Amino acid sequence: MGPGPSNVAPSVLEAMSRPLVGHLDPVFVKMMEEIKAMLRVVFQTQNEMTFPVSGTGSAGMEFCFVNLIEPGDEVIIGVNGVFGTRMTDVAERCGAKVIKVEAPWGRIIEANQIAEALKKCRPKLVALVHAETSTGALTPVEEISRLTHEAGALLVLDTVTSLGGCPVKIDEWNVDAVYSGTQKCLSCPPGLAPVSLSPRALEVARHRQKKVQSWYLDVNLLASYWGQERVYHHTAPITMNYALHEALRLTLAEGLEKRWQRHQSNHLALRDGLAALGLCLAAQAGHQLWQLNAVTVPQGVDEAAARKRLLTEFNIEIGAGLGPLKGKIWRVGLMGETSTRENAKTFLAALSQILNAPAVQTSPAVAAAQSR
Amino acid sequence: MGPGPSNVAPSVLEAMSRPLVGHLDPVFVKMMEEIKAMLRVVFQTQNEMTFPVSGTGSAGMEFCFVNLIEPGDEVIIGVNGVFGTRMTDVAERCGAKVIKVEAPWGRIIEANQIAEALKKCRPKLVALVHAETSTGALTPVEEISRLTHEAGALLVLDTVTSLGGCPVKIDEWNVDAVYSGTQKCLSCPPGLAPVSLSPRALEVARHRQKKVQSWYLDVNLLASYWGQERVYHHTAPITMNYALHEALRLTLAEGLEKRWQRHQSNHLALRDGLAALGLCLAAQAGHQLWQLNAVTVPQGVDEAAARKRLLTEFNIEIGAGLGPLKGKIWRVGLMGETSTRENAKTFLAALSQILNAPAVQTSPAVAAAQSR
Repeated sequence: MGPGPSNVAPSVLEAMSRPLVGHLDPVFVKMMEEIKAMLRVVFQTQNEMTFPVSGTGSAGMEFCFVNLIEPGDEVIIGVNGVFGTRMTDVAERCGAKVIKVEAPWGRIIEANQIAEALKKCRPKLVALVHAETSTGALTPVEEISRLTHEAGALLVLDTVTSLGGCPVKIDEWNVDAVYSGTQKCLSCPPGLAPVSLSPRALEVARHRQKKVQSWYLDVNLLASYWGQERVYHHTAPITMNYALHEALRLTLAEGLEKRWQRHQSNHLALRDGLAALGLCLAAQAGHQLWQLNAVTVPQGVDEAAARKRLLTEFNIEIGAGLGPLKGKIWRVGLMGETSTRENAKTFLAALSQILNAPAVQTSPAVAAAQSR
Repeated sequence: MGPGPSNVAPSVLEAMSRPLVGHLDPVFVKMMEEIKAMLRVVFQTQNEMTFPVSGTGSAGMEFCFVNLIEPGDEVIIGVNGVFGTRMTDVAERCGAKVIKVEAPWGRIIEANQIAEALKKCRPKLVALVHAETSTGALTPVEEISRLTHEAGALLVLDTVTSLGGCPVKIDEWNVDAVYSGTQKCLSCPPGLAPVSLSPRALEVARHRQKKVQSWYLDVNLLASYWGQERVYHHTAPITMNYALHEALRLTLAEGLEKRWQRHQSNHLALRDGLAALGLCLAAQAGHQLWQLNAVTVPQGVDEAAARKRLLTEFNIEIGAGLGPLKGKIWRVGLMGETSTRENAKTFLAALSQILNAPAVQTSPAVAAAQSR
């Protein structure tokens, strides 16, 4: 119940124990096509260039930036947590001039903030984290997308934690480049980064002045392997693709809408249970993630000690706060297979027991320091 | 029996079906330490900075170049096949001025060629492919290493196909940066790239003028995750690390020397069997890989048809030639778990049957064209 990896269905684990075939074997090539087709459904897109990058979610982030940015390009990046911050680092390493649009951690990036920024520059792209895993806030995309395209820019979206757990509609929202991870609401082990580029983004990547700085992530090379030509590029992680294939099959068998509802319903149950314990969620009201619940650590409670007891005594892993939220929140994941009513209840029962025990109460001195 | 992925031991497949833990879980952290320790033995190195990059072998190549090269640096690269060629592309994308030292595909890079090149430039590094998977040739490292260090340069070595299948001695050979893959002679599914940097290489990466152009592969960030601090960087591919841990355990349980001998002995058996069929190996005599046998396709035989029959009728996958060797060689892997006497014999029996059947004989016109 941490911020990912989430639990994995037995059939996904079983898929990984199948014997390996070669990365150009006809059986694997057929599987690649099925993965692409299923990813298009999950991303709600018709984009031909939809496939899993052979790395984790952060490699997906780097894939989007290295292919679209050339040195000197202006880019606007929404920063309201770890992953927006990471985007600025990645973009700067591509030679971008980054204009940050910031919000306090836990709050969303407002469309009017982007509108203001767009008045002051001519960016090649606007990049946004849909679901900030570090804070539990979900930034709405549609209005920002409209503003971005009015300004002639491309929209890049991080859906690492949102994909499969709440609505993600790439074509309807007119997103040009999107990346995700497998280990959150798709409930597949980490190791692949599903990505999708719109034809417009692909044109930008194809007509660059300068080669993409990463050979491994160059979409112009990857397109020949994941496209119809099957030109050898790198050896795809066969087993990880077996797992993703099965995880996508399960996702679509459940149905996207139903899966989103399940995540919403278990989130609401957790939220209500927390309220009954006198606890509240830290992210901006009305924009709280269903799949990642940032819980405000109550005054006088040792955050790390409580989290450690959950792991060692109750076998429940949750995440710590990062950056400015360190020590202030717990991050409780209800992602993919982990999003069950039973898990929500078990967690609430364990937390209740721990909070009522004296061991996690901090010393009066610490409590006093905290309250300052 | 292709050029990788090789077959995987049942216990490695089983390891991947174990439930996931978090990437900062104490159990996983302990496993990371064991993987690092076992990799040091396999690489024959004391290098602290020895760990698996979260991508396939080509990501390992990119890791070495992005961390060591800054724009404008001169580098010497030995090019005698696909992977040397790839190195030049990767290095150029890092802004390097590349001096190529070339040999015909199938031949090794001679030390005197490197000596000549070193007279004409002051390179930051010399890069070499130890075992060229595309040609079946093994380039000796020691003399080139001596020359490289005399010239004050770093030595970068590709051991994707050599590691675990023949002697690889990073400290004895004084190699500064080395990368490999998991899916060849370690017999683990593809998805991770074991790497190792000498303290000297690490110093170069630490004191760069400019940030590493890849955030995902920046050793200065990765060192904090794989080192003692455990600072969150990216979510490691947990399951792939389970697999690598078990594959390394099996490798060391067999014993490195014994494993090398097994590869040699099965290679010799295959070579003798091929000779009995009137076939010979294509790579330079005295430098033929034990783990990847490039077999010259005899005159009048349709290379692709024979390879397809091996797959469809005998369930044996082998690799085709690439680049200038396309249509001219078959690439027969005897790597890791796949390197058995039985596999060598089964392959020889199947090939013998196919070569004696009329179906794979090309038409007289094609045969005539081939002999021109």
